[in-house]
Amino acid sequence: MKIGLDIMGGDFAPKATVLGAIEAAKILPEGQQLVLIGDKDVALSILQENNFSAENFEFVHTTEVIGMGEHPAKAVIKKPGSSISVGFQLLKDGGIDAFSSAGNTGAMLVGSVLSVKTIEGVIRPAMSTNVPKLTGGFGILVDVGANADCKPEYLPQFGVLGSLFAESVYGMVSPRVSLLNIGEEEEKGNALCQAVYPLMKENKNFNFVGNIEGRDLFSDHADVYVTDGFTGNVALKMAESFYVISLKKQIKDEFFARFNYEQYGGSPILGINAPVVVGHGISSPEAIKNMVLLSRDMAQSGLVEKIKNAFQ
Amino acid sequence: MKIGLDIMGGDFAPKATVLGAIEAAKILPEGQQLVLIGDKDVALSILQENNFSAENFEFVHTTEVIGMGEHPAKAVIKKPGSSISVGFQLLKDGGIDAFSSAGNTGAMLVGSVLSVKTIEGVIRPAMSTNVPKLTGGFGILVDVGANADCKPEYLPQFGVLGSLFAESVYGMVSPRVSLLNIGEEEEKGNALCQAVYPLMKENKNFNFVGNIEGRDLFSDHADVYVTDGFTGNVALKMAESFYVISLKKQIKDEFFARFNYEQYGGSPILGINAPVVVGHGISSPEAIKNMVLLSRDMAQSGLVEKIKNAFQ
Repeated sequence: MKIGLDIMGGDFAPKATVLGAIEAAKILPEGQQLVLIGDKDVALSILQENNFSAENFEFVHTTEVIGMGEHPAKAVIKKPGSSISVGFQLLKDGGIDAFSSAGNTGAMLVGSVLSVKTIEGVIRPAMSTNVPKLTGGFGILVDVGANADCKPEYLPQFGVLGSLFAESVYGMVSPRVSLLNIGEEEEKGNALCQAVYPLMKENKNFNFVGNIEGRDLFSDHADVYVTDGFTGNVALKMAESFYVISLKKQIKDEFFARFNYEQYGGSPILGINAPVVVGHGISSPEAIKNMVLLSRDMAQSGLVEKIKNAFQ
Repeated sequence: MKIGLDIMGGDFAPKATVLGAIEAAKILPEGQQLVLIGDKDVALSILQENNFSAENFEFVHTTEVIGMGEHPAKAVIKKPGSSISVGFQLLKDGGIDAFSSAGNTGAMLVGSVLSVKTIEGVIRPAMSTNVPKLTGGFGILVDVGANADCKPEYLPQFGVLGSLFAESVYGMVSPRVSLLNIGEEEEKGNALCQAVYPLMKENKNFNFVGNIEGRDLFSDHADVYVTDGFTGNVALKMAESFYVISLKKQIKDEFFARFNYEQYGGSPILGINAPVVVGHGISSPEAIKNMVLLSRDMAQSGLVEKIKNAFQ
């Protein structure tokens, strides 16, 4: 298996990404090869500084970089030689089996859809994040920003994607799928939720347990929380800010510690024809390592095939 | 001034409400009279138990109660003798100058619109909540649930309502009004936010400072955070759950303490022709006291007149 990593993506790239790649390489068993995509000379010099043999990696040298602030669609098309564009080309051609980057999220979404493409039957790919539960473990919030505006038929599909991800990658058994809403009862919510609820109730592809509210996101009411990408993104960033506040306040608590995005590696793009993970812009080496491992786990679990089967 | 309180509303009514009324009465200066609306006999017995003279209050005896789970519109119409319906009748007729209840939120909204009515020019009344800032003080999040679905033209009005509330009741000078969005740049967001941004930018009735994200809700980027009632309600309940978690974890910190809804009293209904506050269902006597004082502050500040002037 070949695991592609964009070493140019993220606020602290290429230093943080190469250091993360070293940590990942130490863990990856034989037969799982990390492919570093980006400026090879810079990578070699960081590896040398850290006394880590370049023989642990394959390299695909690239000369362009898509910046964090660039327009995603334009950048992907204008910069075919960028680490993100080259990574997706490799993924499409089978040169790598998984791809991850802590770079421009929009470019990662556009690159996914243009290269490996959306799985047939999936209307819109979605991104998820892990939200810790007070009782231990975590739930999967989907979508967290790929689709700011959603039609009702998208959300049951997010339920399928989230459920299969939770099951395949994290081994959750028959994950409880819920709809994030502003009341518990079936008829509650905005027009979107009112239209989505009956669709989710009749969907046979997951274990629907009804509505949850904002206050239930950290409890154990469900394992997958389905929402539109606008609400999901606001919720994700609020949760992130609580983690930052807990650090500032020097609160030592295992629950708050489990908010740390670093341990989850990043947000998978679900519903496309290959395993892709997008890391947080501020990714540390630890986060990069876990991003690589998550993309590996997605490839190893056969998640993409399972999603394809569900949408056949 | 006569300040009306529904003593039958809330999970712990009438005990918590009458105890809260006692605390409020101890603080209210001469000329500010609390009017207790509900079962007078029960109120008198609680007052007697607590050795507090009934002479501190006026009473309006009612015999019906609207339950927390009842359908708001149906309940208000079917139960004209309920404490909420009688309260709004008094408010409409000038028998009281402000009204508050920790009862059925939907019934409070319906009652407001049917009795004192929406201020001319206001499309939809909105509800707000106070969100603490890490740097001290708090911001105003509006709407937190009165309007699950919003048209673009509602949100600039929420900005006017929130700004005048912050200014009149809390003395904030030229409050910075922001739009809760999923990116900082003007063009970011869902279709609603993209349509709302230019409307807020051109609105001369408040000091617009642009978009904020979920992570900025607890920072000092703005003083008023405008959003649709769905997103606002999810955010409110997430914030509430963090307060509950901080209690469970026995985190002693002044910032987390400022999440305590009790100190803010409740959510005002903004944009109607009288001061109305809705308390949290689980309101304690402390919360009830502050709810009463908030409704008094709204009356005293002339907030309703100021809103009327803004929409003339």
